[in-house]
Parts: sequence; C-alpha cells; structure tokens
Amino acid sequence: MQEIKKLPKRFVEIGDLKVGKNNNICDVPGVLVGHYSLNNEEHNTGITAVLPHGENLFKKKVQAASFAYNGFGKSIGLLQIDELGTIETPILLTNTLNVGKVCDALVDFSLKNNPEICVTTGTVNPVVMECNDSRLNNIREIVLGKEEVTSAITSAKNNFSQGGVGAGSGMVCHGLKGGIGSSSRIVEIDNQEYHLGVLVNSNFGSSNSRGLIFKGRNIGEEIYSMNKSVGDLDKGSIIIIIATDIPLDNRQLKRVAKRAALGLARTGSFAGNGSGDVFLAFTTANTEAHFSKESFKKIELLRDDCLEKVFKATVFATEEAILNSLLYSKSLKGYRGEVKSISEYKNLYEDLLIKE
Amino acid sequence: MQEIKKLPKRFVEIGDLKVGKNNNICDVPGVLVGHYSLNNEEHNTGITAVLPHGENLFKKKVQAASFAYNGFGKSIGLLQIDELGTIETPILLTNTLNVGKVCDALVDFSLKNNPEICVTTGTVNPVVMECNDSRLNNIREIVLGKEEVTSAITSAKNNFSQGGVGAGSGMVCHGLKGGIGSSSRIVEIDNQEYHLGVLVNSNFGSSNSRGLIFKGRNIGEEIYSMNKSVGDLDKGSIIIIIATDIPLDNRQLKRVAKRAALGLARTGSFAGNGSGDVFLAFTTANTEAHFSKESFKKIELLRDDCLEKVFKATVFATEEAILNSLLYSKSLKGYRGEVKSISEYKNLYEDLLIKE
Amino acid sequence: MQEIKKLPKRFVEIGDLKVGKNNNICDVPGVLVGHYSLNNEEHNTGITAVLPHGENLFKKKVQAASFAYNGFGKSIGLLQIDELGTIETPILLTNTLNVGKVCDALVDFSLKNNPEICVTTGTVNPVVMECNDSRLNNIREIVLGKEEVTSAITSAKNNFSQGGVGAGSGMVCHGLKGGIGSSSRIVEIDNQEYHLGVLVNSNFGSSNSRGLIFKGRNIGEEIYSMNKSVGDLDKGSIIIIIATDIPLDNRQLKRVAKRAALGLARTGSFAGNGSGDVFLAFTTANTEAHFSKESFKKIELLRDDCLEKVFKATVFATEEAILNSLLYSKSLKGYRGEVKSISEYKNLYEDLLIKE
Amino acid sequence: MQEIKKLPKRFVEIGDLKVGKNNNICDVPGVLVGHYSLNNEEHNTGITAVLPHGENLFKKKVQAASFAYNGFGKSIGLLQIDELGTIETPILLTNTLNVGKVCDALVDFSLKNNPEICVTTGTVNPVVMECNDSRLNNIREIVLGKEEVTSAITSAKNNFSQGGVGAGSGMVCHGLKGGIGSSSRIVEIDNQEYHLGVLVNSNFGSSNSRGLIFKGRNIGEEIYSMNKSVGDLDKGSIIIIIATDIPLDNRQLKRVAKRAALGLARTGSFAGNGSGDVFLAFTTANTEAHFSKESFKKIELLRDDCLEKVFKATVFATEEAILNSLLYSKSLKGYRGEVKSISEYKNLYEDLLIKE
Repeated sequence: MQEIKKLPKRFVEIGDLKVGKNNNICDVPGVLVGHYSLNNEEHNTGITAVLPHGENLFKKKVQAASFAYNGFGKSIGLLQIDELGTIETPILLTNTLNVGKVCDALVDFSLKNNPEICVTTGTVNPVVMECNDSRLNNIREIVLGKEEVTSAITSAKNNFSQGGVGAGSGMVCHGLKGGIGSSSRIVEIDNQEYHLGVLVNSNFGSSNSRGLIFKGRNIGEEIYSMNKSVGDLDKGSIIIIIATDIPLDNRQLKRVAKRAALGLARTGSFAGNGSGDVFLAFTTANTEAHFSKESFKKIELLRDDCLEKVFKATVFATEEAILNSLLYSKSLKGYRGEVKSISEYKNLYEDLLIKE
Repeated sequence: MQEIKKLPKRFVEIGDLKVGKNNNICDVPGVLVGHYSLNNEEHNTGITAVLPHGENLFKKKVQAASFAYNGFGKSIGLLQIDELGTIETPILLTNTLNVGKVCDALVDFSLKNNPEICVTTGTVNPVVMECNDSRLNNIREIVLGKEEVTSAITSAKNNFSQGGVGAGSGMVCHGLKGGIGSSSRIVEIDNQEYHLGVLVNSNFGSSNSRGLIFKGRNIGEEIYSMNKSVGDLDKGSIIIIIATDIPLDNRQLKRVAKRAALGLARTGSFAGNGSGDVFLAFTTANTEAHFSKESFKKIELLRDDCLEKVFKATVFATEEAILNSLLYSKSLKGYRGEVKSISEYKNLYEDLLIKE
Repeated sequence: MQEIKKLPKRFVEIGDLKVGKNNNICDVPGVLVGHYSLNNEEHNTGITAVLPHGENLFKKKVQAASFAYNGFGKSIGLLQIDELGTIETPILLTNTLNVGKVCDALVDFSLKNNPEICVTTGTVNPVVMECNDSRLNNIREIVLGKEEVTSAITSAKNNFSQGGVGAGSGMVCHGLKGGIGSSSRIVEIDNQEYHLGVLVNSNFGSSNSRGLIFKGRNIGEEIYSMNKSVGDLDKGSIIIIIATDIPLDNRQLKRVAKRAALGLARTGSFAGNGSGDVFLAFTTANTEAHFSKESFKKIELLRDDCLEKVFKATVFATEEAILNSLLYSKSLKGYRGEVKSISEYKNLYEDLLIKE
Repeated sequence: MQEIKKLPKRFVEIGDLKVGKNNNICDVPGVLVGHYSLNNEEHNTGITAVLPHGENLFKKKVQAASFAYNGFGKSIGLLQIDELGTIETPILLTNTLNVGKVCDALVDFSLKNNPEICVTTGTVNPVVMECNDSRLNNIREIVLGKEEVTSAITSAKNNFSQGGVGAGSGMVCHGLKGGIGSSSRIVEIDNQEYHLGVLVNSNFGSSNSRGLIFKGRNIGEEIYSMNKSVGDLDKGSIIIIIATDIPLDNRQLKRVAKRAALGLARTGSFAGNGSGDVFLAFTTANTEAHFSKESFKKIELLRDDCLEKVFKATVFATEEAILNSLLYSKSLKGYRGEVKSISEYKNLYEDLLIKE
C-alpha cells in the first residue's frame, strides 16, 4: 500500500476558508470513494471510483458539468454530461490505455444494476477519466477489467487513502510521486454550512521538478538543486473532480469546474501541450429521477452573485488537493525506474508541513 | 447479408453538384471502409470502420474536427480531436453499449501496430462512435470485441455495401430499416476536381415514420397512412462522417461538420432529445507525421471565402447519404420485432427512384 | 410602409402543431415587438425591438441562451448571455454597420431607466443583433441613433407588422424581398397550453433565388426559370429569436436555439460562409430579480425528456416565420436597385398560399 | 499623465525565459500601441489601441482567437473572430458603458480607410474590449467618441506608457491602482528568436487587497494589515491581449489564450462572478489578404508538440504584465474616492522591485 498512515488531518493550509471534517471530497455528504490498486513488479496502476452518492446513480442522476482545460485526453462520457447536465454512473479514474476496458466494465456494472436499460428505457452513459502511468506501470498490458472495477465501486466509502493508491498508483507529478489528493471547504450561505470537495489524480508537470510551487514558494527549484534530473516536456495530465452539495445547475457547475485551473496554476502548471487537464464538477443537490411521471421538476439554485465563495473554495481546495497528492505519496520503484516522494527531501518536507 | 446487390449507382438525385465515381465516401482518394456484420436470431449488430487512409494512422494523422449537434451520445475520442485537430486511429462505428469493448480492441490494434506507444512516445486516442440498435439487436449482450474490430478494419477497401450492414445492421430510421448510407460530391476549385464524401449510420426519427421527408416530399405521412404504427419519441441517433481531400484546418472542418445538420434537417429530423447526432469531418490533405524532426509544418489551406461550394456539397451529400441508407436497406426481423424496408411500399418506392 | 395589410392570419401551414392566436412571437404572453423604419431614396433600414416583457428588463431579467450557427456576424451581448444565462435589455435588431451606435443608444436607454447602474450596482449588457442591408440601404451612412432606438422600444406592443419593416426594411432573402417574419406554436404539456414564438430577420440565400424551398418544393428554381438573375455567394445572414413561456434553463434554451438551424435548412439555406446565422432563445418563465436579498431562487423546469415537442415547435415555427418574411414583403426599389417580392410571381404566389 | 517616467526596464522577474528588448507587447515586430487618456475631476478613462501591425488591417488581416474565461463582459467582435479566425480592425480597449460609442467610431474609422466596405465587398468586424472604471470615472457620462478613438489609433507606436493611462486610466486591481501593464518573452525555436508579448488592462480582485500575490508572496495580506479596507466582491475584470510572431492557427491561438488564466491565477485571481476575464491572442505571421485572386493560401505553422515554450511564455508574461500594471500606476483621486498605488507602501514596494 502506498498511502502513509496516521497522517495529520491537514498537512498544509491553503487560503482562509474553513476546511471540512476530514478535509476530503467525502465531506460532501453522500460522496463515496473507493480504490482498486495493483502493485507488483510490472504494474503500478488501479482504479479510483468517485460515487456522487451511494444509491443507484442511473435512477437518481446528479447534476454535473465538465471543462476540458487541455483536451489532450481520452476521458469518456463528457459529451453527454455537457448536453444533458447529468451523471448517471460512478466516475471511474484509471490509466489511459485501460479506458476502453474499464468503460466496458462500467457498462456491465450498470446493466446488472438496471435491468431496464435498453429494454424499457434508453442507454447509459459511462464516465471514465484517465492519466498516463507508463513510467511506473507496464501500461501496454491492459489489466484492469470487470473484477477490478467492481472492487473499486463496491469498496467505496466515506473516507479513503490518498497518494499512490487506486488510479494514483503510478502517477508522477512535477517529477515526484503523485496520485490521489483531496481537500474540502465549508461554504457558508445564509448561516448554513455547505460543502465543496475536490479530488485530483495528479500526473502533470515536467520531470525535472523545477516548476513546482508550494504555497507560493518555488520549491521545485530547491528540489532541482538537490537532485538535478533531466527535464522533459509536460506529458502528464491531471483529472480534477469537484463535488458540492450547493444547488447549482449545469451552467454554474461549468463555471465552477473552470476555476479548478486557477488552483492548478498555483502549484506551477503550464498546462503543457501533452497534459490532459480535464475537470468534472457535480452537485448532490437537485438529483434527477430517471423514471418520472412528472413533466416538470421543482428545484432550488444558488444565485450567481453568490458564487464568489464557491469559486474561492474551488481554487483553494484544488491547490491543497494537489499538494496533498504529493505529501501523501511514498517513493516508488516501478516499471521504468524509481520516482521519489517529496518526503525524501527531509528538511524541505518538514519545513513545508504545518507545525503543531 | 443485408445489402441489396446490383443497385443502380444512384437511387436519388439531391442538388446540382457533380457526384463522385461511386457516389460514396471512398470517392475521396485513399478513404477505405470495412464492415463486420453479425446477424443471427438474437443479434443484428456490427462494426463499420472508416479509414481516412490505408497507412498507419498513428504515424500519419489526418486533420479533423467534430461537432455534436445533439450530444446525447457516447462517442469516444472527440475531446482530443477538438484539442489537437487530428485523428490517429481508424474511426469505428458500433452499437451504444459496445463502445467500451470496441474502444479496448481499437487500443489493442493501435498498440500492435505501434510498438512505440507508451514506450518512446505518448498515448493513442481511439475514436469510436455509436448508435443504439436495441430494437433489432440484443444489445445487452456485448458481443463485439478484438476479432470483430480487426475484421472490420482489415477488410476495409475502397468500396463497400450500404444499408443494414456493419454498424448499420440493426438501425431503424423514421420507423423504417436504416443503417449505412453514403454519397459523394465533386467540388471544383481552380479547375481541379476535389472530393467530398459522406457516410452516415442512420438511426433517427420517431417510430411512426411520419416525419420522413424525401426530396422535399413528406413521404412519411404517406407511409403512415398505409401502415399506422404507434409513434414514440425520437430515441435514435445519427452518426455522420464527412471526408474530403480539400485542404482545410480544424476550424474550417468544424464549420463543414456543422453543415451536416442542414442535410439532416432536409430528411425530416428534429434532432430529438434522445437522438445523439454527432458529426465528424476530416481531410486527407495536410497529413501530420507523429514523429518529426521539424518544428514547423508547411501546409496549404482553402480560403474561407471559397467554402461555399464545400458547404453545399456537405448538405447535399448528407441528405443523399441518409436517403441511400433507407433505399439500400432490406426488411429485417430482429430481436424485438420486424422493421420494414422502404422498398416494401412498392408503388411509393418505385416512384421515388430515379427513372432511367 | 412595407407590410401588406389585411392579410390572412396564416399564409402557409408548416407542420401539425397548433398555432397561437396571432401566429407571431407575441403569442408568448408578455412579449412585445416594436419597429422603427426609415424608408427614403437613400435609406431602407430600421430597428426592430423584441421585449421579453414590458417591465424593466434590467431589474427583472429573463433566462436566455444564444447559438451562433455561423458566427460571421457582429451581434453584441452574446458573451454575457452565455456566461450568466440572462438578458437584461430589449433585444435590438438593426443593420450591420449601425450596431455600435444602436448599442450606445441602448446603453443610454438602460441608464435612463436604471439610475443604479454603475452607481450602486454593476454594468448593463446591451443586446444588439444585425444583418447587412447594403443592397437596399446606403449602409455606410449610419443614421440610426438614440431617437430611433427609443422609438422602436417605446412603440413595442403585442402585435406588429411583418415583411420589409423595422430592421427588415432593407433585407433580401434568396434574391427576393425579405425581412421580419414570425410564427408561433402552442405546446401542450400536462393539459396546459404553453407558447413558443419565433421572429426572424431574413437576409440569407444567394441572389439567384435558386435555393429557395417552400414546404419542400424548390420554388427557387421555378422563380429562376422566370427571372434568371446572376447568382452570387450567400453574403446574407439571418437572425432568429425564439421566445417561450415554457420554463427552461440556459442549457435547455441553447438546445432549443440550435434547432432553429433545422427550420432554416428546410427553407434552403446552406449557411454560406458570409451568412451570419445567429440564434437567441429566451423564456419568460423564471425571471430573475437583479436586486435580491435571497441567496437562492426556487424555480421550476421542464424535464429534458419532454423537450421533443419544444424542438418540433421551434423547427416548424422557424420555417414558417422565414416563409412569412417573404410572403409579407413587398417589392422595393432601394439604394442599389430593386428587389422583387415573391408576390410578383402571381401564379406561383397564389398557388403557394393557403386556400380558404 | 499617470505613468511613471524613467522606470527601470524591468521591475520584477517572472520565470526563466528571456525577455524582449523593451519587455512589452511591442517587442513583437510590427505591433503598435496607442493611448488616449482623459483625466479631469469627473473623468479618468480612455482608450488603448493595440494594432497588430501598422498597415491596413482590413486588407491584411491577422490570425486570432479569443477565450472568455469568465464571460461577464461586453466585449464586441469575438463572435466573428472565433468563426473566421481573423482580426480586421485595431483592437480597442475602453470602459464598459462606452463600448457602443467606441465601436461606432471604429466602424467609422474602418469605413474611411476602406471605401470598398459594403460597396464592392462585405462588412467589417470591429473589436472593442472593456473594463468597468466606475470607481474613478463618471462612467455614466459616455465621453469617448470618434475623435478620441482616432487619437488612440493614430498615436500608436512601438513603445508606450503603462499604468493608469489610456483604457487603464480608471482601473483598480486588488484594491490598488491598476491599468495597463505589459511584458514580453523571447521564444527560441530552431535557433531563431520569436517573440510573445502580453498587454493587460487590470481591474480585477476584491477591493480589500487581500488576494494579491506577488511572485508567490501574498503581499495582499501585508497591505491589508497596513490599511484595512472593507472588502467586497470581485466586480472587476481583466482584458489580456497576447501577441506573437510565431506562426499559429486559430485552434493553437485559442490554446495560447487559455493559458493566460494560469498567469492571472498566479497573481491571486479567483475569476470572481462579476469579473469579465476575456483573452485575445493573435499572431502577425500568416497575414491574410482580404482581396485575393487565389483560392488557396500557403502557410507555415508550429507543430503542437513545440507549443510548450509558447505556453510558458504566455503564463510568465501575463503574470509579469499584471504586476507591471500595478508597479507603473500612481495613486489617483477620482470620481468616487482615491485609490492608492502599490508604491505608497514604500518599504514593501522597494522590497518587491529588482535590486540592481
């Protein structure tokens, strides 16, 4: 297992907004996350499942929107999300070449749970997102299928490991070990607490580390001075999932999803040509029944002039989730070499963490 | 086999532009089409492969653009096409629930032909598009995999059958048997002949036929008066592929792809809520090497003020391709009932065809 | 005045949906239309104002979305409509070169009616759309300003003239006199009657008429055979405004706006390179207060699976509105020559109209 | 005059790329910038004109693309830029309510210089972008017209003042005096030096300064601790113009324009609801003749896999341009109060600047 146990609840403080109970995406009530990790000599890969809620997603869809900041990616399912504004399956993250097989498994999962699909009702739109883990994983062997998908989905619960786990198993970010990271914020509206959580799979940045920014400090240069690695282009990617219980519609969720780019920028990304930077936002409010006798639906929405706090929460939580993905990850010797954890730079690492 | 043999080269004349030699998408030099069809008691489904050229597409990409007129669909690969403006695999059409498995097979095909992928170079972007054939096919059994994909791709040649064949095997259009249809046009520019070809997989329109328009004539009502079927919503879809050898860039190809909607409209489509109407345009001009030592590429492009003829050719060829998809199809008894060919309405059918 | 008086309520029947009381956009309760027309030796131009309702639009905004089918146009205000999903001024149609001056006048009008703008609240987003009337109007003399804008807005009422009036004064469509046309449909949902209305300013099609389609009949060729004019490219445009009282959000209204292209196609458009084909849809339901103490708004929305009828109504009403724009127009001798009304082709014209 | 004279060429160093000769957008050969500034008791506003080259832009268009990161804005002309990929007038920046009048003046300017417009050829697409200067300017009085536009355009030269000048006269950024800022980078490709320059009009950030980040340092909090102002929402905006001589097409320029958001993020923006953050990128390479006898054009383009450096240059130059807009600005007492320059915080200011 890649994750570090007994971590402090919070490694690093980004911004001035209140953090949720566990500082992860599951602080949004109902959201569940599950991992399937494969770690052996040849493979460091896996699947991370984000479930907007624990019920049948096909029958009870959630409102959603995507934004492709850099569409050099192979994510599946975004076309229909943008047209209809809903998600109707678990969101699965995996490696780039495995998207087809995982998509097929997700269709299978949906069919099993919904005997009506293509019998008494229409089709289903599987959502699969990806990053390329070819440095640490023998990605050309496509090893994740139905069993692994089912395991990731059915193991989903309201807390989860971060770092090199699940789809994050083989990720590399700014030349360091990256992967799954998460963070959350409380957004107060009318004296009520709402939640916004972010989960990232970080795999971006050039391999020479130099671009990495940590709370405004260009620690990438510090790491580079300790460990001059040969730089190359940003061939990575980052998937960013934003969850909230604030009632927003597709247009507003797209606005929120776009703001993830600002949090990403604060950690030093240039959104390189080869970096598939794809964002997906959903709300657990205003779920939509697949089967309904009603022609109309009654919903509540936040006014746009109250979105400011939501945008801020998105930027801060994205930045912190990315940093967490680094801070939680352990060094890993994989298929094509070793990738160091940021924690290997001991003095630096201890300097970065919140002092208690 | 579903296709009708020994058909006249041309059933119906749409517009005043010159038609290509075989009046199909393969009139664009280099374009190849292959089918895999599965027809038995339970299944009427298949794969249609459109190859922009017969060489290695990953190493020699073609310029492309997509346009989702109605994104209620599960097409795979459009995200990267829109970002980078290129296609790097065969374009595969299949049924909705099979997209994952066909995508996986297409990745496998690409890996076998390109040992460099994820070793010395980046990933590959598979392109798979779909329609729902659940009326005539037991779509919940996902039966098309690597063997079938390889068969469709490797059988591709510069001519092909139309109607209920390949991915068109189980299609229903305006309540009649639909499927693969094609048509082409010659576009003269500076006294030189260029080509534009369209291939559709037609599966749209409500099941009561009433909306169908044939060369401006609402024959749908005529058919309905002969055979009152119970209407329902447009749950179908149409995939439209536009190929050309005119040198156009991504922005221009998107403009071309958009015009397919106008041809579609002329056959009576309302682009119903559930109809995934997704268009893809590519040019065989200005192919792009994956591996290159050059930083720059020299290309030639048509000026936008010369696009008028290209738009017209797209509208006419799309309309004619859709009508061809109906005219080539034979009646079929499938998984959930029988769907009649337009040719069963004998007097009408003979009235429609070009008289020699 | 260009419009024909004492016309039958309905010239032509498109589709099978019930038509509103006056068969125009004002059948949507609350919608008002006003014209300012300038017709003299040098000028045939004007302004048409569409008011989603008669109250203060800045304080009581309407939900809206735009779709640029072909963005060769100079419309103002669409950027913010797409971001915020609302319209907050009257929608003004005018000629291409006059958009700046009309925009300035619309800002002035908004400031006068809203002393809070840029004092205690933010700015205002003027909406101005345009077509090029340079054949019949000396467009290089920019003659429409504050007085004319105020006249168009303040004269708006719940019925209006069609044809060569207001912004339609100098329009040419398929080589014939075009301009303002309108049509409406009743959409029954849950046994309640909702309304959808379309207003177009038609200025598209090549000058040789040949492309014009009337209820599926290519009457353009018939006209051409009677009056061979030298053809040229489609340098025109069409603005299409869709109003409804069905509760739809920005995403759904964009889906509706897109369908206008299908109605346009049915009248023979190829959306030529130079034709600015821009569509704008709004609903009078779920108006939004500019000033509000509430953070949330409660709204009702139609479910997407009930949109089919709305799409059909849009296609039919658009097609009929375009035909009406031709049928209502009279021949006009303008700045650079004469443009004939379709009614000059007497036998054809009488053949086209609904027989009573 | 607002600008500070005899400044060092470079205040602040962002990133490791080489800077152009004058560290501004005019380092891109051919690009010219002109200002018209109006500063009196009531008004602090103006116009900034960016000319992609000094010749007739209508006859010799430049390739371009826009990206609206947050479309709460009233920019004019972007619709056609996105459809055709070209700019054909000077780019004018001004205040929000003045866009119509400035647009009208720009049309007038274009007509005067192009007697063919709407006579022997089509229309012209004016490009006007805006920010709201209502704090320092009596914006409800719309004072900028033909004379002022002509002055801004005709005074354009290959160097220019920064800070509170031209359209930047009344800008406020992070609660400090903002306005026009610029920076440039050299991009080496194949041992040849290309140029990329950015010009911003900075008007974003909440009025309490707290969000401002300077080279990773949250100096906004430092300023706030010295001068606690009452915070409010981000009602500002930022216009970012990116110029280059690298040969890129519309799709690639849109990718470049998007990266401006990353530079913006690094200075502390959340892209607030009310902040119209609109970016425009153009290249001086591959200019396009309006009148041409050719159907095709031969061009050269950079390969996408060489875009990495271009993206980096965009991020760095945007960040530095924004900081320059603050560093060049002087305190200003305007229509609704005073806004301090960052230079008033002496110790901080001196600490920030490059030490020689």
